[in-house]
Amino acid sequence: MDTILQQSFSVSFNYPVCFTEKLFSAENPVFVNVLEKGKKVKTFFVVDSGVVEAFPNLLGEIKNYASYHKERFYLCAEPLVVPGGEACKNDPAIYQQVVQATNDFGIDRHSYIVAIGGGAVLDMVGFAAAISHRGIRLIRIPTTVLSQNDSGVGVKNSINYFGKKNYLGTFTTPIAVLNDFNFLQTLDDRDWRSGISEALKVALIKDLDFFELLEANASAMARREIEPMKTQIIRCAQMHMDHIAGKDPFEFGSSRPLDFGHWAAHKLEHLSNYRVRHGEAVAIGIALDSTYSHLLGWISEEDLNRILQVIQTLGFSLYEPELSGENLIQGLREFQEHLGGELTIMLLEKLGKGVEVHEMDEQLIRKAIEFLQVKSQEPKLI
Amino acid sequence: MDTILQQSFSVSFNYPVCFTEKLFSAENPVFVNVLEKGKKVKTFFVVDSGVVEAFPNLLGEIKNYASYHKERFYLCAEPLVVPGGEACKNDPAIYQQVVQATNDFGIDRHSYIVAIGGGAVLDMVGFAAAISHRGIRLIRIPTTVLSQNDSGVGVKNSINYFGKKNYLGTFTTPIAVLNDFNFLQTLDDRDWRSGISEALKVALIKDLDFFELLEANASAMARREIEPMKTQIIRCAQMHMDHIAGKDPFEFGSSRPLDFGHWAAHKLEHLSNYRVRHGEAVAIGIALDSTYSHLLGWISEEDLNRILQVIQTLGFSLYEPELSGENLIQGLREFQEHLGGELTIMLLEKLGKGVEVHEMDEQLIRKAIEFLQVKSQEPKLI
Repeated sequence: MDTILQQSFSVSFNYPVCFTEKLFSAENPVFVNVLEKGKKVKTFFVVDSGVVEAFPNLLGEIKNYASYHKERFYLCAEPLVVPGGEACKNDPAIYQQVVQATNDFGIDRHSYIVAIGGGAVLDMVGFAAAISHRGIRLIRIPTTVLSQNDSGVGVKNSINYFGKKNYLGTFTTPIAVLNDFNFLQTLDDRDWRSGISEALKVALIKDLDFFELLEANASAMARREIEPMKTQIIRCAQMHMDHIAGKDPFEFGSSRPLDFGHWAAHKLEHLSNYRVRHGEAVAIGIALDSTYSHLLGWISEEDLNRILQVIQTLGFSLYEPELSGENLIQGLREFQEHLGGELTIMLLEKLGKGVEVHEMDEQLIRKAIEFLQVKSQEPKLI
Repeated sequence: MDTILQQSFSVSFNYPVCFTEKLFSAENPVFVNVLEKGKKVKTFFVVDSGVVEAFPNLLGEIKNYASYHKERFYLCAEPLVVPGGEACKNDPAIYQQVVQATNDFGIDRHSYIVAIGGGAVLDMVGFAAAISHRGIRLIRIPTTVLSQNDSGVGVKNSINYFGKKNYLGTFTTPIAVLNDFNFLQTLDDRDWRSGISEALKVALIKDLDFFELLEANASAMARREIEPMKTQIIRCAQMHMDHIAGKDPFEFGSSRPLDFGHWAAHKLEHLSNYRVRHGEAVAIGIALDSTYSHLLGWISEEDLNRILQVIQTLGFSLYEPELSGENLIQGLREFQEHLGGELTIMLLEKLGKGVEVHEMDEQLIRKAIEFLQVKSQEPKLI
């Protein structure tokens, strides 16, 4: 006679996502407020080399801040500076350096690892923290538009392995996410604008008001005005947080991330050998799937033009030469395999409302690509 | 003006812990019942070499079972046989073999890794599964008393690193735990009895009835009768499951595993170079902390004698030479460091009721050790 015991429990996850400026100026309480109260906690900082180059005083400011708040926390070692960008996820020796530090400096489950950098550094450090001692507390400090409004607020970490993106990783929540808008000042124009495409993505599939806000502010953001950028980041971060909290945060089922325009974007990044950055590729992916939605008769020509206008006003291209030929179509087939056989693609039913489909017409994709190629050669009015 | 968004969500975790016999005989539905319905799923088996030696027909039975249930699942590759015992957690090349297999055979988040073996193999395979693709579905098939009544039902996985036990790992729930009592038949006497000490542990600190059941069945279990063993395993597994589900499954706070007698056990295992097995060390640790509780005046001499009698009846020692001298006391100090400064030790207030203390008297520990040394030299009545 078989016996079956049913295990069943719920775990609640809570963390603040804070937006501030001058995070490490002595009187700013945001950082110390997220530390465990009533004791002096051990911290270890891991910092993106790109951020250290752009802000040469940062490490000094962190030390001053620690000294000002010495009743609350201390640095158990010099901050570890790691290469920024995808490089830090490609070389396993780098995440192993973080794991090694946890052993060298006795960083335990009651200590904090503080990761400062772009999305790649946050992913890599997050992975090392998640598997050391079954999870050291992690504070994420995203320093790019893309990591502040999207990847940095989420529950994933990873490194690349076997030449495959995010092959190793876990779903693990941070203790807190602290966004300092001042980090955005030194981004080059391409990185400044790149993250905005994630906002455009969520707006188009979920929130017409937000799309119209982006539309109204596109020129100002292109001119690098910070206020509309802040508004965009906070609203986009909130939408990603809501999506995660929505129903299946750790993606046990077949729930998908908040994707639109991403199937083509991933392939284009790869085809261009990463000359085209993620956000730039997403902008083109959005243009492509919006055009496809129009060719299906779902959104009007006028709505399509509004979308393409926003993309161009922000300074993005609508087309890159790698889109031509059969390579992109091949990417669609790969994406289908990646999903385990059934394709799921988000398209636009109307502005602010996405709808999932399970097949795409290859001929229509080619037509959309041709349309964008022509469109990108038209003289711009802006 | 700072903005703070609060992320907050709950995730529910559910998995069955099944007890059966002849798990892979064709008509047994327990295995296929835990697979996703309505499709033919991909599986990959990783099997403890000790189990393959003890059951040379096992791999053949698994293939026959797969063939009988070919509408429900298939093996994507030959089962991978890995060394059993702590060795498989010490050599990172072994867990990497499992990760490599996930890439070689396209094992994705919708596939199943099936781990068959003792606790060490389940820990190691669980870690590889947890970090590949951010978590491949895992079915655990524990084959020892200890893994069936304790470690196999839980939410942890790990490998050893930097020469430290369980240094790398995650908290990740399995899809299912399938216990087949037939695997216990070939255990040697030491492993057969070892796992019973975990039952004694939970009984003493939580459940007088269960202690009295173990007391009544100690001789029968020592004679290797299977029915009282089954009863013990199921009841002990349920108590561990309840403890995990209780309040802090992933140990975010300072919640501790269901420990009693374990501080001394860990040190004794280490001091004996693992000549003393975990369950044997736990039995001695229980004897020690029970004696200490008696010396504090908390449990009576009669109750202490009942406990020691059960331990000896089961065939355990009460004393090993490594307990002498200062080494064990040193272990207490290390445990305190491990806990981050504050010591927490479970003692017995009475039979079936544990109570936590935050200090132990070193002189009294020495006295308890001497008592056990003398006691272990008395002629046994059984």
